[in-house]
Amino acid sequence: MIDNCLGAQRSRKIRRALRHCKVTIFCLVLTVVVLRGTIGAGKFGTPGQDFAEIRDHLYHRKRAEPHRVLEEVQTTTATSSNENAGADTNAGTNNYNEFDIHKILLDEESDDSKRDPNAPYSLGPKISDWDEQRSRWLKENPNYPNFIGPNKPRVLLVTGSSPKPCENPVGDHYLLKSIKNKIDYCRLHGIEIFYNMALLDAEMAGFWAKLPLIRKLLLSHPEVEFLWWMDSDAMFTDMAFEVPWERYKDSNFVMHGWNEMVYDQKNWIGLNTGSFLLRNGQWALDILDAWAPMGPKGKIREEAGKVLTRELKGRPVFEADDQSAMVYLLATQREMWGDKVYLENAYYLHGYWGILVDRYEEMIENYHPGLGDHRWPLVTHFVGCKPCGKFGDYSVERCLKQMDRAFNFGDNQILQMYGFTHKSLGSRRVKRVRNETGNPLEVKDELGLLHPAFKAVKIPMKEK
Amino acid sequence: MIDNCLGAQRSRKIRRALRHCKVTIFCLVLTVVVLRGTIGAGKFGTPGQDFAEIRDHLYHRKRAEPHRVLEEVQTTTATSSNENAGADTNAGTNNYNEFDIHKILLDEESDDSKRDPNAPYSLGPKISDWDEQRSRWLKENPNYPNFIGPNKPRVLLVTGSSPKPCENPVGDHYLLKSIKNKIDYCRLHGIEIFYNMALLDAEMAGFWAKLPLIRKLLLSHPEVEFLWWMDSDAMFTDMAFEVPWERYKDSNFVMHGWNEMVYDQKNWIGLNTGSFLLRNGQWALDILDAWAPMGPKGKIREEAGKVLTRELKGRPVFEADDQSAMVYLLATQREMWGDKVYLENAYYLHGYWGILVDRYEEMIENYHPGLGDHRWPLVTHFVGCKPCGKFGDYSVERCLKQMDRAFNFGDNQILQMYGFTHKSLGSRRVKRVRNETGNPLEVKDELGLLHPAFKAVKIPMKEK
Repeated sequence: MIDNCLGAQRSRKIRRALRHCKVTIFCLVLTVVVLRGTIGAGKFGTPGQDFAEIRDHLYHRKRAEPHRVLEEVQTTTATSSNENAGADTNAGTNNYNEFDIHKILLDEESDDSKRDPNAPYSLGPKISDWDEQRSRWLKENPNYPNFIGPNKPRVLLVTGSSPKPCENPVGDHYLLKSIKNKIDYCRLHGIEIFYNMALLDAEMAGFWAKLPLIRKLLLSHPEVEFLWWMDSDAMFTDMAFEVPWERYKDSNFVMHGWNEMVYDQKNWIGLNTGSFLLRNGQWALDILDAWAPMGPKGKIREEAGKVLTRELKGRPVFEADDQSAMVYLLATQREMWGDKVYLENAYYLHGYWGILVDRYEEMIENYHPGLGDHRWPLVTHFVGCKPCGKFGDYSVERCLKQMDRAFNFGDNQILQMYGFTHKSLGSRRVKRVRNETGNPLEVKDELGLLHPAFKAVKIPMKEK
Repeated sequence: MIDNCLGAQRSRKIRRALRHCKVTIFCLVLTVVVLRGTIGAGKFGTPGQDFAEIRDHLYHRKRAEPHRVLEEVQTTTATSSNENAGADTNAGTNNYNEFDIHKILLDEESDDSKRDPNAPYSLGPKISDWDEQRSRWLKENPNYPNFIGPNKPRVLLVTGSSPKPCENPVGDHYLLKSIKNKIDYCRLHGIEIFYNMALLDAEMAGFWAKLPLIRKLLLSHPEVEFLWWMDSDAMFTDMAFEVPWERYKDSNFVMHGWNEMVYDQKNWIGLNTGSFLLRNGQWALDILDAWAPMGPKGKIREEAGKVLTRELKGRPVFEADDQSAMVYLLATQREMWGDKVYLENAYYLHGYWGILVDRYEEMIENYHPGLGDHRWPLVTHFVGCKPCGKFGDYSVERCLKQMDRAFNFGDNQILQMYGFTHKSLGSRRVKRVRNETGNPLEVKDELGLLHPAFKAVKIPMKEK
């Protein structure tokens, strides 16, 4: 009996010790998370600032790991029936930049162990005649043309966010402002929007989820000529700038970046996949297939990450991300893809916020919308800011403040159409700058955005 | 010296008493607010449920008053420089349904005393030849036609919300889901969206702010044939239903409602102004001018409210709202407006959520999208729910839970296009219901929403 008691006692001690270990580990992780969160991060957009960028990007990317562990701890304690938004306090980590369609595709395989890591990953059944299929469809469906004007392709802008409320509540407010911003630009430019909100598995598959979504949309919408992927933390800051579609008539993939940084240096930030154009066609399916293999979560992505860190310049150690993988793909298979890839740097298809937001007043003073470049950036991209995630420090405050300014900077260009402007770039309030008139149609808005040429229907309606 | 001490003492006592009074009043107000918030509210959409609706609507509308007082108390303590969203904890009350463009128009007159209550309110300079101005413009701009297909007018859907983060953080998440829902419907139906986020003065001008915004948009966009106003708490639940534009060819104003309830009973809920169609033209400007006079905040709106309560059936006592004012306007000036107003009840241009949301599963079982009516409502409108405002009680939980269900109900119709569906109406998670294929264009989505007829361009492009 005494032996049993001792055994039971010891067993309790062991269990207690294990619990303590778990708690200790949890606290340790939490500490790491908080520490990571307090370290500033940012990503520079010009070649000459590589080192600062690498250092900052390191912290930005690395922050992903502790969050993931933390999420796993949280989800084991949250009840699976706890899906009512009102009571859902364990919302989990939300990746403000990404969404995870792996959750869509593999939802029935929600248990990691079901996915055979040895089975080669596939985005879907191999298709080799997409150009032909698409061409035939377009002929049979002239009422769904892939060009809506001369030099004006049909464009679908794709973005999205988690279906769960942000951990940081103000994050949803910024997602809302961000989509309003995109709605405004796209309305002016005759671009349609697809906002994806499929269940997000933030840190698990993160960046990679856009691949299956993009493939699905290209194949479902043959009428779409260009798919424009845009991160939810990227905002339009030049409402008047029309993408120079003609420039890309021989290209299939347009990203902001620099040839030398990708092909010569294999620099992991030689291009940005937060805002890019992908032409619908067989080539797109092929590059998606070539891009995808480093993505599958777990061992594959870990190992691929090591390869990328070893092969790319300046890349820190972390799992494979879609951007690094694209640099690697292009740098090592230039002959296969290079001729159809356009690395654009004449304007900010993606513009790193860090070097732009403090200059808005200067831009207003010296320049005007329609330039799209460093003088008046098309896109201001808040890489490194995670307003949807946990709140905390000065740098996040800077992020939010600057996101407000960027939003207002773009919004002013919309408001001026109607005779208003924000009181300042930091203010939600607006003021009138043009009086009402009895002849509204004689008044032209300064930027000509009310009825811009790039939106006009080229072939007039024959009949009502 | 003793006299001075006594005087100083008494003075301190008086000041302390005053402070106590302020605190007492504040607490009293807070108590009232909380009490109001715990009283359930809802609004029924069928004529036979008038009494329940009135009772519930009473509490819904009345809740506005205590919030306003509370907001004033809060704003006197908040610092005016506290505009950084990250630190803005005194976000103030947000009216989830409305926005306030009065703030836009009168921003320089932010002090109430500057606005002369005796000066007649005006939405802008009187215009009497808008049909002629517009007609001329359309002729001169054939590349901006007001009809984009036979029987297919150019429609602009207008909605919006506060530029401030919601008091209740989860509110922004629902605003985000709501706009995604509208983006989806409008993309399928070739409708453009204008999302207004001008500074909101929720309880001050609330419902009325849509009038100046609508006027401004009509006059700025002569190419828009119909302006569709839709509250931010209304969601599309029938993605396949196309508004029967032909039905309204002789009408200028379409609202959900019943003739007998408006013209015979003068029932204050005989129509709903949360979702309506307004045809661009002189008539619209005229009715906006006739509608506006009861709106100006303060004495005018208070007194107008008394008139409306006295004149309309079942209306509780509170300041004038735009909906009651429209009932009154139509009922008393039927001969002036009635022939161009279509009170629609054959489908749910506005559908009260209370009688719809518990039937979604039954609808899925028995019916299909495309009906738009009680069998499959076009719009589910969450009147009475204020997720952007203060959180608290069971009924708000019901609101959020039902809003999730309504969102998923609509979202399933989008997801099925791509072979997916939500695991249940209450779940964010999705599951695959159609396998990937190597011949995606041979697969038709069940509802035919990938390339619906109502979106096709009727005149094909002549050249690329």
